[in-house]
Amino acid sequence: MQRPSGRAPDQLRDISIQRNFTCHAEGSVLVSFGNTRVICTASVEEGVPRFLRGSGSGWVTAEYGMLPRSTGTRMGREAARGKQGGRTVEIQRLIGRSLRAAVDLKKLGENTITIDCDVIQADGGTRTASITGACVALVDALNFLQRKKLILGDPLQQMIASVSVGVYQGVPVLDLDYPEDSAADTDMNVIIGEDGGFIEVQGTAEGAPFARTELNAMLDLASRGVEQLIAAQKQALAEG
Amino acid sequence: MQRPSGRAPDQLRDISIQRNFTCHAEGSVLVSFGNTRVICTASVEEGVPRFLRGSGSGWVTAEYGMLPRSTGTRMGREAARGKQGGRTVEIQRLIGRSLRAAVDLKKLGENTITIDCDVIQADGGTRTASITGACVALVDALNFLQRKKLILGDPLQQMIASVSVGVYQGVPVLDLDYPEDSAADTDMNVIIGEDGGFIEVQGTAEGAPFARTELNAMLDLASRGVEQLIAAQKQALAEG
Amino acid sequence: MQRPSGRAPDQLRDISIQRNFTCHAEGSVLVSFGNTRVICTASVEEGVPRFLRGSGSGWVTAEYGMLPRSTGTRMGREAARGKQGGRTVEIQRLIGRSLRAAVDLKKLGENTITIDCDVIQADGGTRTASITGACVALVDALNFLQRKKLILGDPLQQMIASVSVGVYQGVPVLDLDYPEDSAADTDMNVIIGEDGGFIEVQGTAEGAPFARTELNAMLDLASRGVEQLIAAQKQALAEG
Amino acid sequence: MQRPSGRAPDQLRDISIQRNFTCHAEGSVLVSFGNTRVICTASVEEGVPRFLRGSGSGWVTAEYGMLPRSTGTRMGREAARGKQGGRTVEIQRLIGRSLRAAVDLKKLGENTITIDCDVIQADGGTRTASITGACVALVDALNFLQRKKLILGDPLQQMIASVSVGVYQGVPVLDLDYPEDSAADTDMNVIIGEDGGFIEVQGTAEGAPFARTELNAMLDLASRGVEQLIAAQKQALAEG
Amino acid sequence: MQRPSGRAPDQLRDISIQRNFTCHAEGSVLVSFGNTRVICTASVEEGVPRFLRGSGSGWVTAEYGMLPRSTGTRMGREAARGKQGGRTVEIQRLIGRSLRAAVDLKKLGENTITIDCDVIQADGGTRTASITGACVALVDALNFLQRKKLILGDPLQQMIASVSVGVYQGVPVLDLDYPEDSAADTDMNVIIGEDGGFIEVQGTAEGAPFARTELNAMLDLASRGVEQLIAAQKQALAEG
Amino acid sequence: MQRPSGRAPDQLRDISIQRNFTCHAEGSVLVSFGNTRVICTASVEEGVPRFLRGSGSGWVTAEYGMLPRSTGTRMGREAARGKQGGRTVEIQRLIGRSLRAAVDLKKLGENTITIDCDVIQADGGTRTASITGACVALVDALNFLQRKKLILGDPLQQMIASVSVGVYQGVPVLDLDYPEDSAADTDMNVIIGEDGGFIEVQGTAEGAPFARTELNAMLDLASRGVEQLIAAQKQALAEG
Repeated sequence: MQRPSGRAPDQLRDISIQRNFTCHAEGSVLVSFGNTRVICTASVEEGVPRFLRGSGSGWVTAEYGMLPRSTGTRMGREAARGKQGGRTVEIQRLIGRSLRAAVDLKKLGENTITIDCDVIQADGGTRTASITGACVALVDALNFLQRKKLILGDPLQQMIASVSVGVYQGVPVLDLDYPEDSAADTDMNVIIGEDGGFIEVQGTAEGAPFARTELNAMLDLASRGVEQLIAAQKQALAEG
Repeated sequence: MQRPSGRAPDQLRDISIQRNFTCHAEGSVLVSFGNTRVICTASVEEGVPRFLRGSGSGWVTAEYGMLPRSTGTRMGREAARGKQGGRTVEIQRLIGRSLRAAVDLKKLGENTITIDCDVIQADGGTRTASITGACVALVDALNFLQRKKLILGDPLQQMIASVSVGVYQGVPVLDLDYPEDSAADTDMNVIIGEDGGFIEVQGTAEGAPFARTELNAMLDLASRGVEQLIAAQKQALAEG
Repeated sequence: MQRPSGRAPDQLRDISIQRNFTCHAEGSVLVSFGNTRVICTASVEEGVPRFLRGSGSGWVTAEYGMLPRSTGTRMGREAARGKQGGRTVEIQRLIGRSLRAAVDLKKLGENTITIDCDVIQADGGTRTASITGACVALVDALNFLQRKKLILGDPLQQMIASVSVGVYQGVPVLDLDYPEDSAADTDMNVIIGEDGGFIEVQGTAEGAPFARTELNAMLDLASRGVEQLIAAQKQALAEG
Repeated sequence: MQRPSGRAPDQLRDISIQRNFTCHAEGSVLVSFGNTRVICTASVEEGVPRFLRGSGSGWVTAEYGMLPRSTGTRMGREAARGKQGGRTVEIQRLIGRSLRAAVDLKKLGENTITIDCDVIQADGGTRTASITGACVALVDALNFLQRKKLILGDPLQQMIASVSVGVYQGVPVLDLDYPEDSAADTDMNVIIGEDGGFIEVQGTAEGAPFARTELNAMLDLASRGVEQLIAAQKQALAEG
Repeated sequence: MQRPSGRAPDQLRDISIQRNFTCHAEGSVLVSFGNTRVICTASVEEGVPRFLRGSGSGWVTAEYGMLPRSTGTRMGREAARGKQGGRTVEIQRLIGRSLRAAVDLKKLGENTITIDCDVIQADGGTRTASITGACVALVDALNFLQRKKLILGDPLQQMIASVSVGVYQGVPVLDLDYPEDSAADTDMNVIIGEDGGFIEVQGTAEGAPFARTELNAMLDLASRGVEQLIAAQKQALAEG
Repeated sequence: MQRPSGRAPDQLRDISIQRNFTCHAEGSVLVSFGNTRVICTASVEEGVPRFLRGSGSGWVTAEYGMLPRSTGTRMGREAARGKQGGRTVEIQRLIGRSLRAAVDLKKLGENTITIDCDVIQADGGTRTASITGACVALVDALNFLQRKKLILGDPLQQMIASVSVGVYQGVPVLDLDYPEDSAADTDMNVIIGEDGGFIEVQGTAEGAPFARTELNAMLDLASRGVEQLIAAQKQALAEG
C-alpha cells in the first residue's frame, strides 16, 4: 500500500499553527494540515444565551463555514442559499461540543466565546484541523479575559486536538487527505485531550463494516497523532 | 449503582416492533424501546436524485422528526419555525447513512426509498430506536419491490440495528432511557450489522473524557444488545 | 347511488376516540374516523401571547401536520421544505378558531393551551377528525388545570365536534372518505356545538355550484352526525 | 339597531368597478366597496404548472396582498418578513378556487391566468371586493385571449361575485365594513354565481354559535347583494 | 437624436403629486412621473429601533415594493418567494438614507416614520419618483406630529427630490422612461436638496465608461430637473 | 487637518496584491488596502444562467461576504441568519456590474465566471479593495480559459479598479480607512477603467449635502488613486 501523498501510515501532514492571523479577534489562528487551511477566530462577548442567564456559567459555541471556492469545484454560498447545509450543522455542533469539554464553564463566568472556523482551502480533514486550531484561538481568548481581569483563574481544563484516521486499501492510516478520504473504507474522526482521554469518537463504515481490530488500530494511530498535534499547539502558544 | 429503571447494566428495555402500523407506506413499523415510540415508514419512489441519474444505482435516504409534544415540555414545531434544527439534521443524516450501508444500491436499480422516522413519544434513544425500526420498514419495502417484480434479487446485504450505551455513575450500561441519558458521563450510539461489524460508532464525553477501557466495555455491551435487537427484528419479519 | 364504502348516506364511519395515547401531554387522544387517524395532544403552558398579556384572558391555539407518508403518495416534509403549505395553515387556523369558541377564555386565566393535530393516516376528513379529537384532548387539559388548582371553575362552555358532508353522485352524504371526497361535487365541513348551534360552516362547490336545497340537506346530515360524535366524545371522557 | 354607516341592513356600500386602471396587465380593475379599495390584475402566461402539462387544460390562480399602510395601523410587509401570513394564504386560496369555478379550464387551453389582488385601502370585506373585482379582470383577460386568437370560444361559464354578511347586534346585515366586522357575532363570506348557485359559503361564529334561522337570513341577504354586484360587473364590462 | 417620447433632452415627463391618496396613513401620496405611478405612504409610530433607544433621536426608514403586474411581464411576488430581491433592497436603502438626510432626527424625538413606496405602474424611474413622492408624504407626517403636538418645532431641514439622467444615443437626457432606460449607455440617479447640494449621486456605465464631461452635463440636467420637481412638491403641499 | 493614519490627503494606504493565494480557483488573489484584506477568487463554470442560454454570450457575477470576526465586533454569520443583509446584496451587485463592464461577454462564450470576495479583515474600503482584487482574479481566470483553449481571443476590454474618496473634516481625502469612514461628511466609491472613464460613481452625503466643487475634488483624487491601483494590478500580473 502506497499513500497518495507518499506518507507513512502513521505520519501526519505538515502542521502549521499561526497565531494573530487577523487583528480584531481575541484569538485568531490560521491552521494548516497540509493543504487544508482554516481561519479559526475566538470572539469574547459578555453575557450568555437565555438558558444560562443567572447560572453564573459561561458558554462556548462554534460556527463553521467553507469559502465557496475552498474546494475543487465551487460550492454554492450558504448565505445566498439561505440555509446552512446538514454537513455544516453537524460539524459546527461537533466543534462546539468538543471545545466545551476543554473548558470549565463555571470559571468562565457569564461570558460567551464564539469560535468561527472558516475553511479557506480544503483538502480533507477540515473538521479536525478546525478543532485543533480553534483550541489555540480559544486559549488566546481565555488569556485575554484573564489579562483584562474579566475572569479570575484559568477556565482551561486541558488542551484538546483532533485528527482523522481511516482504513485505506486495507491499512489503517493517520490524517487522511482528500484523495484518501474519498477512497477510504472507513473514516473516523477522533478528539482527544491532553491526558489521553477521548472527548469524541465518530467512526463511519463507508464501504464494508469495520471490525473491532481495525477500530483498535485506528484509535492507536489517533492517540499518537494527537500527541504530536498538542505538542504543536503548545509550541505555537509558547512562541506568542 | 442502581439504574433508575431498576434494569441490570446489560439489560435492554422492553422492545416491540409492530409491522403494518399504517396502511399506505410500503413499509410501516411502530417501534418501541420502552416508552420511546417511533413510527418508521419506508416509501418507494421510482427515480433517483440528480447526482445518480443514469448510474443504474438506487438511493436510500431518511428524514426524522419529533411530534411537538412527544417530549415532557412541548417543543416548537419545526415546520412552523421554518427550519429543521441542528439535532434533527444530524440524526436524519445518521439514519440515512446507516441504512445505505445495509443495502446494495446497485441491486436497488434507479429507485429511491425514503425512510421517515417520526417520534410520537420520547424517553431517550430515539435515534437508535429509529434505526432499528427503520431497518424493518426498509426490508418490507425491499420485499414489496421484489414482489412487484420491480427489481430482481434482494438488495439487502444484512440487517442492522442500533443501541445506545453509556457510563452512568461510573458503570457502563446498555440502552439508556431519558433519566440516565441526561445524567450520563459518556453517551455512545453504536450501529452494528448482523455480522457483528461496526457501521457507525459515535461516542461523546458529556463530562470527563472517557478511557479506552470504558470504550471497550461499552462496545461489548453494544454488541450484545444489537444481537438481541436483530433477533427481535427477525422475529417481527417472520410473523408478517 | 352506492357509496364506495357501502355506507348509508347518513352513516358515519367507525369512530374511535382513545384517550391517554401518549404519556407526556396534558391531553392526548388518538381519534379515528374509519381509516383516518390523528394524534391530538393538548399542551398547557403558563402565560399568553403578547397581545393578551395583562388581560387576564387565556388562549387556545392549534397546529396541524401530516406525517409525510400518511397519504397514498409521500408528501414532502414541511419542516424540510422550510414552510407550512397553504392547506396546513388554513386547517390549523380553523381548528384553533373552533376550539376557542368552545372555551371561556376569561376562565382559563393567563394560560395557553396548544393543540397539536398530527395525522398519521389519512383517508379524508382529517380536519373534522382533528377537531373532534382535539376537543376531547382540550377537555383533559382543562381538567388537568382544575385538578392542579391552577384555575377555578370550568372554562368549557360546550363540547364541539365536526364532520364533513357533501354531494356525491347527486346525493347528500355524511362523513366523506377519500374516494368520495375526491369525486364529490360539493364538499362542506361543519363544526357544531353541543347545543346544535353552528360554530363554522365551510362549503365549496368542487364542480357545479350547489343550490340552497342541497345546502339544507347537507346541514341536516351534519347536525345528526355531530350529535353522534358528541355522544362518542362524552363516552370516551366518561371512561377515563 | 343602527348600522355605524347608517345603511339599511340589506344595503351594499357604494360599489365602483374601474377597468384599465393600470396599463400593462391583460385585465386591470380598481374595485371599491365603500372605502375598501383593491387593485385586481389578471396576467396571462403561456403554459401551465407541472401537474397540468400535457393535459390540454389551463389554470387560474390568485395571489393577495395588502399594502403595509392599507390599514389603520401599519402592518409589517410580508416580503420583508419573508413569508405570507396565514390570513393571506387563506384568502388567496379562496380567490383562486372561486375563480376556477367560473371558468371552463379546458377551453382555456394550456394557459395560466394569475390574478393579483392588492389592497390599497382596507375597511372590511377585502376578500369579497377582491373576488368581485377579480372576476371582471379575469373576463378582460379572457377577452384578450380570444381577441388575439390564442383561444377559441369563451372559457367563462358565468360571472361570480362575493359579499359578506353577518349578524350585527342581533340583526342580519349585508356587506360589513370594518366597524361592523370587528363587532359582529357572526361573519360569513358568500360567493355566488350568476345563476344563483353557491360557489363557496364560509361562516364563522365570532361569539356565540349561530342558529339555522340566522344562517338562512344571511344567505338571503347575500343572494340579493350578489345580484346587485353582478349587475355592477356587467355594467362595467359594457362600458369598456 | 429623437427621444422615444418626443421630449426635449432637458424635459421632464408630466409630473403629478396627489396628496391624501389613501385615508389611513399620516402622509399618503400618489406620485406620477409620466406612466410611472407610485403610492408613497408615511406611517408614524412611537418609539425607535433598539440602537436608538434612549438617544432622544428619531428614525426614518423606507420599504419599497412593486405590484407583481406593475411591469410589462408579471414578476413573482416577493412575499410569495419569501425574500426581497437585491434590487428591492438596494432601492429601499437608498430611499431611507436620502430621506434621513432631509430631516433633523433629533427634532423628531423618539418617533419612527416608515415610508412605504409601492409601485403600481412602472415605466422607468421608479426610485426617483418614489423619493420625490415620499418626501411629500414625509412632510405631511411631520406636520401631523406637530399638529398633534407630539413634537415641537419642524424636523424638516429641506425638501429633497430625485431624478434620473443618462446618456441616450450619445446625448445627455433628463428623466428617462423605460424605453430610454433600457437602451441608455449611462444611467444616473441623483438626489438633490432644495439648496442645490447633492444628497446622493449614483451613476453606472451600462455600456462604455462615461467621461467627466458627460458626468458634468448629466449633473447639470439633474440640478435643473430637481428644481422643477421641488417646485411641484411645494405646489402640492400648498394646495392641501 | 491631520488624517488619523497620518497619510497625506491624496495618499493611498499600502496596497498589496498576492496572486495564487489558494490553490483550487482559476483565479485567487489576496488583496490588502492597509489593514483591509479580502480573498478574491474567480471560478470558471461552463454554461450560463437561463436568461442567456443560446445567446452565445457569457456571464460574470459576484458574491461578497465578511467573515464574522473580520470586524471589531463579531457580526452574525449570514448563513446562520438565513439571509444576506441589504449591505451585502448592494455590494455584490456593484462588484458584479463593474466587472461585467470590464469584459466583452460575447468573447467569453457561454461560460460563467463567479467572483467571490470574502473579507477576512475589515478596516474601511472593503468594496473598493474587493473590486480591485477581483479584477486581477478575473484576468487570471480569463487567461486560464485561453490557455486551455476554451475560448479564443481575450475578453478583457480593460482593467478596472476602485477606490473610495470622501470629505473628512472639510478636506477631500483618498482611500478612507475605518476611522475616517465613520466620521466623514461625504463618502464616495468610484470605479474607473484603465482609460480613465468612469464605470460607476456612488457618492452619499452622510451629514450635510455636498457641493459640486467638492464632488469635483473627490473625483480628481479618485482618478489619481485608481491610476496607482491599476499600476499595482499590472505589476502583480506581470510577476506571475
